[in-house]
Amino acid sequence: MKTLNIIKIGGNVIDDESKLNDFIQSLASLNEPFILVHGGGKLATDLAEKLNIPQQLIEGRRITDAETLKIATMVYAGYINKNIVAKLQKQNINSIGLSGADGNVMKATKRIHQEIDYGFVGDISIENVNFNFLDILLQSGLTPIICAITHDKQGQLLNTNADTIASVLASALATSFQVKLMYCFEKKGVLNNPEDENSVIKNLDWNTFQKLKEEGIINKGMIPKINNAFDALANGVKEIGITSATNFTYFIKNNTYEGTRIN
Amino acid sequence: MKTLNIIKIGGNVIDDESKLNDFIQSLASLNEPFILVHGGGKLATDLAEKLNIPQQLIEGRRITDAETLKIATMVYAGYINKNIVAKLQKQNINSIGLSGADGNVMKATKRIHQEIDYGFVGDISIENVNFNFLDILLQSGLTPIICAITHDKQGQLLNTNADTIASVLASALATSFQVKLMYCFEKKGVLNNPEDENSVIKNLDWNTFQKLKEEGIINKGMIPKINNAFDALANGVKEIGITSATNFTYFIKNNTYEGTRIN
Repeated sequence: MKTLNIIKIGGNVIDDESKLNDFIQSLASLNEPFILVHGGGKLATDLAEKLNIPQQLIEGRRITDAETLKIATMVYAGYINKNIVAKLQKQNINSIGLSGADGNVMKATKRIHQEIDYGFVGDISIENVNFNFLDILLQSGLTPIICAITHDKQGQLLNTNADTIASVLASALATSFQVKLMYCFEKKGVLNNPEDENSVIKNLDWNTFQKLKEEGIINKGMIPKINNAFDALANGVKEIGITSATNFTYFIKNNTYEGTRIN
Repeated sequence: MKTLNIIKIGGNVIDDESKLNDFIQSLASLNEPFILVHGGGKLATDLAEKLNIPQQLIEGRRITDAETLKIATMVYAGYINKNIVAKLQKQNINSIGLSGADGNVMKATKRIHQEIDYGFVGDISIENVNFNFLDILLQSGLTPIICAITHDKQGQLLNTNADTIASVLASALATSFQVKLMYCFEKKGVLNNPEDENSVIKNLDWNTFQKLKEEGIINKGMIPKINNAFDALANGVKEIGITSATNFTYFIKNNTYEGTRIN
């Protein structure tokens, strides 16, 4: 089976022009097919602030009202996505930016929660990934750059977690590709001691994850991220890493693994 | 040769949700392959105003500074493009939104003018249209929705006139498709008497165009629009119309031509 890298980057890379440029350079030297999934960074929050659109958070989760969705669509699918595509084109990576609506690549379902109205938030599943379309793009030598906006096929755009998109895409493609899923975030990997940047856990299995959660060492936003990684593992994704964008570069250049491997 | 419609819509359709929905319905009943090209409408101007970004106009032409380009990218490639795509997906039109950077579909050259610095404005030409990529999409049953943002292949996004994009695309595709190019704007067609909405010129040839320009009957923004139409005619596009989005619907339903035909 052909190798396919699915790489997710978050705010820390997107918000920093110099980091983003370094990362784009790394991608250009990858020499393997990849799909890039990106979130939004603080640009969307900044824009909401400038436009006096209050950001509602319930239990640490952002509520996507109509105005917030508009901003997310402009920033994720517009500004960030097209700038990444243009930067990759400069490096002769024939990239193509996509929301879930484009080519119906990912149909989502609006989240219905008994107590909390999350607003225009969409959840995705493996069976709603348009494999054929992605396959046409990849076979044509195109590199999909996927933002965290999906749709419900009923005309409504939806905000979807980028970590989940990466996990679900990796799972959907694992039957036809040897998928390597890589989460790039601000740390070098999952840390054994949050105070020590170098205490990276080299290998994280399910039991250790449960233990570290109980001990409170792995907490907050790391939990859903790692859950997404284990979902992908359960769905047949063979190689899953959590590392920094800088270590990702190191990984490519040296073909060694720096960061946390999920297994 | 297969028929391919290239349809350009402007602000009057985009800014009005109900008009846009009607237009999307018309497209869904077209039953012929098409490419939609859209501009920005007043949403970009509104956003610039809200963000206190002054809009510079020199000789009636907008200057695209860095902040204005950012807004154009967010609004055209993000908000408008993805909403049109989602609306078409609802109608089972498998649409895909593109800027010129996506799949390198249109490479532009930053405009250099001796006296005026237009900023991040790009000019396009037939030879820089990526025919192969568009052909792959069309052969895969996809419908490209193209916004007025291009790139220079050096990492820079550029603002490009949507009328020109439609004309250049039509010209580039005319060798392989029987292209019908349709400009939809706020009037029923080119008017013989600007005061009379019903004085639509049925057929406009080059000599009549020159005469009406001299008489001042055709003026302002209509001149570059019609020039774009005649450029397409010179490049082998057989059928070119200027009409309203409403008449476009009429045209589809009755297969008769209401509006101005360029010949």
